[in-house]
Amino acid sequence: MNRRGELVVVSGFSGAGKGTLMKALVQKYDDYSLSVSMTTRQPRIGEVDGQSYFFVSREEFEEQIKEDGFLEYACYCENYYGTPRSYVDRQLSLGKDVILEIEIQGAMRIKDKYPSAILLFVMPPSGKELRRRLIGRGTESIEIIDKRLSRACEEAEGIEAYDYIVINDKLETCVDELDSIIRSAHKSVFRNHEIIDKIRTELREFQKEEK
Amino acid sequence: MNRRGELVVVSGFSGAGKGTLMKALVQKYDDYSLSVSMTTRQPRIGEVDGQSYFFVSREEFEEQIKEDGFLEYACYCENYYGTPRSYVDRQLSLGKDVILEIEIQGAMRIKDKYPSAILLFVMPPSGKELRRRLIGRGTESIEIIDKRLSRACEEAEGIEAYDYIVINDKLETCVDELDSIIRSAHKSVFRNHEIIDKIRTELREFQKEEK
Repeated sequence: MNRRGELVVVSGFSGAGKGTLMKALVQKYDDYSLSVSMTTRQPRIGEVDGQSYFFVSREEFEEQIKEDGFLEYACYCENYYGTPRSYVDRQLSLGKDVILEIEIQGAMRIKDKYPSAILLFVMPPSGKELRRRLIGRGTESIEIIDKRLSRACEEAEGIEAYDYIVINDKLETCVDELDSIIRSAHKSVFRNHEIIDKIRTELREFQKEEK
Repeated sequence: MNRRGELVVVSGFSGAGKGTLMKALVQKYDDYSLSVSMTTRQPRIGEVDGQSYFFVSREEFEEQIKEDGFLEYACYCENYYGTPRSYVDRQLSLGKDVILEIEIQGAMRIKDKYPSAILLFVMPPSGKELRRRLIGRGTESIEIIDKRLSRACEEAEGIEAYDYIVINDKLETCVDELDSIIRSAHKSVFRNHEIIDKIRTELREFQKEEK
């Protein structure tokens, strides 16, 4: 059975390990492509253009909006963020599932426009573990950590909008679990109208032959 | 993560290979138990009591109904058919998923009473293949085969009530796919309220500590 590509939206608390997980997923399995968002904000230290984001000017971004070049986009803190359409469309047509690592508002916009998108929420095994990981990074002040935990608290209120939760305990196990969840989601009845209609038509034809 | 047992309802066309598939599934994976239905109809040649069905008298069946001994039951062609509750409850409490191989009406009654039940519909790769398999059995007359195909045509109308379709092409592959679908269904957001609530509570506690 050839599988058609689907949009896979991945959200989750900062510190849940989404980035590492997604990189490991696309490295291990050929079925997935990772979409890179476009933004007008300045790159931070260590961020690479075309990997972290496509960094563009406000004019370039607005030009793309005019050309309907985004699956979804939004403006936060005076900066634009969006999912470029052309890359996603190309990958979907190749039968690849395209992973969009975006936050909840973006996730909701995608689900509205593409109801068959698969929405995943990545969580650490516990709140304590989330705090431990954030502290363990050793790169952020207590204030920033508290801010992230407070943001996680807000984000947690939106989990019901997602289809599946993924507990990121061990990376290896979690990568296989992600693959299995996405693969299984492809088997949902509502994502298989074509196959179901085809077998219905065939069975009806047999009925006619009998008569 | 300890997984709680769920009810797994499996339906599908006669000739789709449900029986063989379910046997292979419980043999390969420890996570599943197969429920055996109870009936008042006479055993057919080759049917074994306690394997194909539990064969009981009408009095025994009605006694069980009075004692609320069935998850669901129905009467067809003057015979009762039902899913005994005690075995299912015991297996669920052990953390096993219990597989109920029942037809669509039973499936709907289960879904009504147990909304977290996972409903699977097993299909052959095509209508043609279904006919080929039914003819290939070599045990049934053309009339019976036509009857089964006509029944399949009716059953196909109910597929939208199920959660997932399972294409039974190669047995080995299909068994693993079944396992993967059921395992993934356990990760649905709506089957994980407890975990989600727990992490929410934890995150809220952190907020209070900050203040």
